[in-house]
Amino acid sequence: MGINYKKELETAAKSMILVRQPDVLIKMIVRTIVQKVKVSHAGILLHNIDRDSYILTVSRGALGLKIPPGFARLDSDNSLIRFFRKHKDKQIFKDGALVYEEAKKCLSKNIPAATKQLLKKALYQMEIFEAVVCIPSYFRQDLLGILLLGKKKNGRKFGRDELDFFIALASDVAMAIRNARLFRELEIELDKKYHLFIHTTVALTAAIDAKDRYTHGHTARVTNLALTIAKRLGQKDRKVFDEKFLEHLRIASLLHDIGKIGIPESILNKQGALTEEEQHKMEEHTLMGVNILQPIKELEDSILGVKYHHEKYDGSGYPEGLKGNQIPLIASIIAVADTFDAMITDRSYRRGLSKDEVVEEIKRVSGKQLNPQVASAFIELCQEGKI
Amino acid sequence: MGINYKKELETAAKSMILVRQPDVLIKMIVRTIVQKVKVSHAGILLHNIDRDSYILTVSRGALGLKIPPGFARLDSDNSLIRFFRKHKDKQIFKDGALVYEEAKKCLSKNIPAATKQLLKKALYQMEIFEAVVCIPSYFRQDLLGILLLGKKKNGRKFGRDELDFFIALASDVAMAIRNARLFRELEIELDKKYHLFIHTTVALTAAIDAKDRYTHGHTARVTNLALTIAKRLGQKDRKVFDEKFLEHLRIASLLHDIGKIGIPESILNKQGALTEEEQHKMEEHTLMGVNILQPIKELEDSILGVKYHHEKYDGSGYPEGLKGNQIPLIASIIAVADTFDAMITDRSYRRGLSKDEVVEEIKRVSGKQLNPQVASAFIELCQEGKI
Repeated sequence: MGINYKKELETAAKSMILVRQPDVLIKMIVRTIVQKVKVSHAGILLHNIDRDSYILTVSRGALGLKIPPGFARLDSDNSLIRFFRKHKDKQIFKDGALVYEEAKKCLSKNIPAATKQLLKKALYQMEIFEAVVCIPSYFRQDLLGILLLGKKKNGRKFGRDELDFFIALASDVAMAIRNARLFRELEIELDKKYHLFIHTTVALTAAIDAKDRYTHGHTARVTNLALTIAKRLGQKDRKVFDEKFLEHLRIASLLHDIGKIGIPESILNKQGALTEEEQHKMEEHTLMGVNILQPIKELEDSILGVKYHHEKYDGSGYPEGLKGNQIPLIASIIAVADTFDAMITDRSYRRGLSKDEVVEEIKRVSGKQLNPQVASAFIELCQEGKI
Repeated sequence: MGINYKKELETAAKSMILVRQPDVLIKMIVRTIVQKVKVSHAGILLHNIDRDSYILTVSRGALGLKIPPGFARLDSDNSLIRFFRKHKDKQIFKDGALVYEEAKKCLSKNIPAATKQLLKKALYQMEIFEAVVCIPSYFRQDLLGILLLGKKKNGRKFGRDELDFFIALASDVAMAIRNARLFRELEIELDKKYHLFIHTTVALTAAIDAKDRYTHGHTARVTNLALTIAKRLGQKDRKVFDEKFLEHLRIASLLHDIGKIGIPESILNKQGALTEEEQHKMEEHTLMGVNILQPIKELEDSILGVKYHHEKYDGSGYPEGLKGNQIPLIASIIAVADTFDAMITDRSYRRGLSKDEVVEEIKRVSGKQLNPQVASAFIELCQEGKI
């Protein structure tokens, strides 16, 4: 026979490192069986959780010897599936393999009538697949898949050592599937939690926006704009503007005005100019935002954007009067987006500027009020019609 | 020799399903080596990422033959580690195993001086461990661990087949470690995202609380109280009050008054009784909360708590006048917690009640205003001094 069990299994096991792509392992296993063991054809039915059915995932063999594609899916009420789901105890198919010829002999023996009938139907199903051996893969109580084997090309029966080898491979399959599922579940869960966080923050900040009659939708617009600018800057320097930076920027933009929750409505909604005292109160929103978010360790990087988005490049901003590159980049980007949105939207006391007027204004204050690199990325985007 | 490679590997591979506990697999592998291959002692050094050192995780063998615990940790500048990190190409230790005797012969051969010196030091390290064979486990470029083997008990050399077997096992170890690390990373990430969500929601709702001078800290107190009540109810019915329910309740409690963001400060902070119109406006906070949160699919179950926490058991509540068991349990729990906190805290127009007075009042309105089962769980907790 000459299977080098050790080598084969070693190779199979190595592929398990491809834990996210169990299909690769499964295909390799079926290929190995057909080529090395010289089986006419082989296939694997894998469980699909969503539809509780078993799908023919791999089918190999000479032309005309593959399992016909018409049988590509078995529902959970199929007799072969029902047989393996019921008979996990392996009393009928000794040691993990259901061998057609031996099982056929069982039919004349003294086994319960219900078992006999189900076995009969299962064997008929094997005939349709032209399978002489079926090997189930379980994880705990769940039937994860079935390995289907055609005849050996030399016409002989499968030996015990060969069956044992297949059973070991089927067990690898079960593990690979199980691991991949665990990973996928965790990844989906991770995605859900992130979206829950982002969506809830969006909803709450939109509600806070809605309190200030001038800033309806402001937060969402600033967030989109800031991300667009950062992505443009990232075309020049991927290292600084990486995925992590974009994530911090998204969160910082969403929360940049969160401190306004602490500003009295009478100031937020005042018609006309604010008194010096009111202006001073209004400016406190940056540090109020910091106070609200400070306890959240994971927001450390984003808080810089909240704190410093009213600093100016020439040092005339607040709360600390930082200058030039002292101002964190995350804050400089929000500042440009915030300035643009403030200028272009209507206020009760003035109409919003046109886009051309805003671009002129941004050009004028670039290097004074705004970080010139960020402003120039913004102007580029405007001129290309992307904002 | 009579190692049943197939069986051993099959067993090893099966254990890989214990993907979260690679230690179990690793211990099993070392035990197998010592028992079946009759090696005097064996151990595994595993990489510890945090400190970039290699820790002796398992050490087996007869008393006095184990690797001394004093050598339980090798830093990354240890010559054995440096040797395997540098010589991933396996030119010196052919086919994946560094065999002491053969490597010793290499020292007299024509190899680069630097390699010779490092090998010399590495072999000295092996002498300290009384190891005659070392087998490294890699994942891509990373040295994940080293398997250390003592002499065979019968005094003979290791055969090629035995070394191959160990190499296959070492490769299983690498995979198990790698998979476990991937899982752990995902789980940590998941935990972080969940905490980010909860902490941000806590911070934002606390900030909203702060706007209403009467409800400072209200949200946090109601959330704790609601969870305490649900856990008590869960002692009687684990199925209804499961982890998922508690998660929805936590979120619903945090967000139950979120709609107050849309209520004018003049109403929120009014001294004395509200006019009918103001009262009506105030009651809108439940549906305003729903409007804010509605777009967030993941909050579907929690929104029921936000929407219905002012319904009353006798049907006299708002917004829909639901009765009895029509009111979702999540809302009934928040209602009890909310009522308790409102009664016990001071208002500008009255002092808060004492805890005894509150319990009497809750008893009085149980079955009228409040769900009697929830109220009785609450009263129990109060009487036990747990609230």
